[in-house]
Amino acid sequence: QAGAIETLEKTLETFIPDAELKEVKRILYGKELKKLILPQKVVEAAQEREFDLQGYVFEAAPEQLRTPRIVRVGLIQNKIILPTDAPVLNQITALHKRVSEIVEVAAFCGVNIVCFQEAWTMPFAFCTREKEPWTEFAESAEDGFTTRFCQELAKKYNMVVVSPILERDEIHGGTLWNTAVVVSNTGQFLGKSRKNHIPRVGDFNESTYYMEGNTGHRVFQTQFGRIAVNICYGRHHPLNWFMYSINGAEIIFNPSATVGAVSEPMWSVEARNAAIANHCFTCAINRVGTEYFKNEFTSGNGKKAHHEFGHFYGSSYVAAPDGSRSPGLSRTHDGLLVAEIDLNLNRQTADKWNFKMTGRYDMYADELTKATQNDFKPNIIKE
Amino acid sequence: QAGAIETLEKTLETFIPDAELKEVKRILYGKELKKLILPQKVVEAAQEREFDLQGYVFEAAPEQLRTPRIVRVGLIQNKIILPTDAPVLNQITALHKRVSEIVEVAAFCGVNIVCFQEAWTMPFAFCTREKEPWTEFAESAEDGFTTRFCQELAKKYNMVVVSPILERDEIHGGTLWNTAVVVSNTGQFLGKSRKNHIPRVGDFNESTYYMEGNTGHRVFQTQFGRIAVNICYGRHHPLNWFMYSINGAEIIFNPSATVGAVSEPMWSVEARNAAIANHCFTCAINRVGTEYFKNEFTSGNGKKAHHEFGHFYGSSYVAAPDGSRSPGLSRTHDGLLVAEIDLNLNRQTADKWNFKMTGRYDMYADELTKATQNDFKPNIIKE
Repeated sequence: QAGAIETLEKTLETFIPDAELKEVKRILYGKELKKLILPQKVVEAAQEREFDLQGYVFEAAPEQLRTPRIVRVGLIQNKIILPTDAPVLNQITALHKRVSEIVEVAAFCGVNIVCFQEAWTMPFAFCTREKEPWTEFAESAEDGFTTRFCQELAKKYNMVVVSPILERDEIHGGTLWNTAVVVSNTGQFLGKSRKNHIPRVGDFNESTYYMEGNTGHRVFQTQFGRIAVNICYGRHHPLNWFMYSINGAEIIFNPSATVGAVSEPMWSVEARNAAIANHCFTCAINRVGTEYFKNEFTSGNGKKAHHEFGHFYGSSYVAAPDGSRSPGLSRTHDGLLVAEIDLNLNRQTADKWNFKMTGRYDMYADELTKATQNDFKPNIIKE
Repeated sequence: QAGAIETLEKTLETFIPDAELKEVKRILYGKELKKLILPQKVVEAAQEREFDLQGYVFEAAPEQLRTPRIVRVGLIQNKIILPTDAPVLNQITALHKRVSEIVEVAAFCGVNIVCFQEAWTMPFAFCTREKEPWTEFAESAEDGFTTRFCQELAKKYNMVVVSPILERDEIHGGTLWNTAVVVSNTGQFLGKSRKNHIPRVGDFNESTYYMEGNTGHRVFQTQFGRIAVNICYGRHHPLNWFMYSINGAEIIFNPSATVGAVSEPMWSVEARNAAIANHCFTCAINRVGTEYFKNEFTSGNGKKAHHEFGHFYGSSYVAAPDGSRSPGLSRTHDGLLVAEIDLNLNRQTADKWNFKMTGRYDMYADELTKATQNDFKPNIIKE
């Protein structure tokens, strides 16, 4: 069943005749994107390394006073490598190796900013509610093994690296956090951004491990543009995307880990709506594959205990402020999505559609402040 | 071109084989909805009256302490009837007649709450920037010709009527507003809700005619559930949907008038995202057809003057909190979409996914308040 459809787009292309396909794609994906022309050796490298490689171009109109602001982003989705009961350090190292071979191809593609999936150095083990060995995957954001690994990649390829990990914060009692580390293309640790909204749904028992992030809605000024990281469940919260945008984010990454029949139809809606509503680019990344755990666990849904909770459906994509979006990566295989973006499209779209100008934020600040009070009286009109 | 695709769903169904179609629909539309079984005489009445009739059922799980809270909503989309230079009263009367014959079928379908399209008594003439004769279409919300017409319908069919009109407010200097009137199923004027966000984009020169609404985010308690009206351009503003939901809306109607290659790919995203993010139902209604105006007008895009600005693409639909949605009505023909909704699905979805519980609204109230200050310093981290 997981493999029934490799990608939605390929299924549409297989069966729908060209004339209708053009209209179907326009309605579903917005304006047609050019494919990014990639050198043959790059295409071959992706084939040899067995991952889906796709590239698209988001163009903007020429302007008189600004040159195009071209940036290439890379989104990486991947399976875990070793069984989940392999030694922790072996699991991490195997993932480092796999991701580094995909990043090398991203570098061949001229990627300037790469983002990995949520908690990319580990299986998504929060379904188990076990503390060991999963908490051993936590690392210092500032100078952990994985951050140092990313700093090497960043320097080697002159690439900004967004690295979402399980963080252990030794300075604050050794607490855990779900955190994205941002490494500058110079190899410097630029900062970290924590997951603001923590799920309590189905197998996503993350509130057992870490609290809501306390790093607010910071935006990172990189050489290639201003970026922010809205981790996973935060994609369901329009206010979260919004506040990153208000702080100036031009590209918001959404590294995720999500499964299931309810989640998948939402996947193509949420990050894309955020790109439209906030006049910015969004990059939605989901892992792939099914992860098996040695000890059985239940899912709080009355069903029998089991060892896995379904396949992560991949389908990573990039969405643009003008409502256009790229196709999704594979639903089942590792992949690298490269998008060449002209950031000038953000302001061009904003100047045309004016959502920020017409946003009436003073009214909402006032209404929201009132709504958070305990004695809030909803504005309800009755007969 | 307008007619190239009648509906997206029909095109998918025509070309994609059953096995793949099931997966394509699951990914694009969420869980499969039952079709509403409608009596043959009703289907025939719709055929005779030449409009697209579709009906779907949004089910919820049974509960122990609450009975199902079933409501049937009706969404009506239609073309204008007479040429735009016909006498004003004739145009209004012709639309009353057309809509009343669709409402009669809605009553046959057991509809409890019906909503018409934005500014439904008139052509969408704001493209012209002419004041006359368009301002003559404005009426009193409380006791205008059209409100009295809706009151008759409401009483006759025991139906709540949401009637979006161009309002003239005599008490406040005769100002115009873009307003939805809500008439109770008893025939009483229940209240009005004004459009909160006014576009300045392309042919939508509405800020020439009326200002941003001053009725906040009121919600109407009807016999069939709590409803709110987010008019047209407000669908691009996630905060607008959100605040109706915070005030308790269970169903948010989005009567609209929209055209164009940029708008259409956004159409299926925005109201649906709002249903997901706010654990409520949303009903997106767009008019159909192309409206010709006697005097030529320009569109602020460097192109030659013209007499029409493209076809309203219809595609009205209902979206549910669990990410499922109905197919769209026709892109080219008048239509009535009937959705049987169990409002219990809202709380069931909220209890499972917890977006309000995990919303951190105090943080956002604080951040948004700061962001609206003139001396706001965005939270940007630099190397």
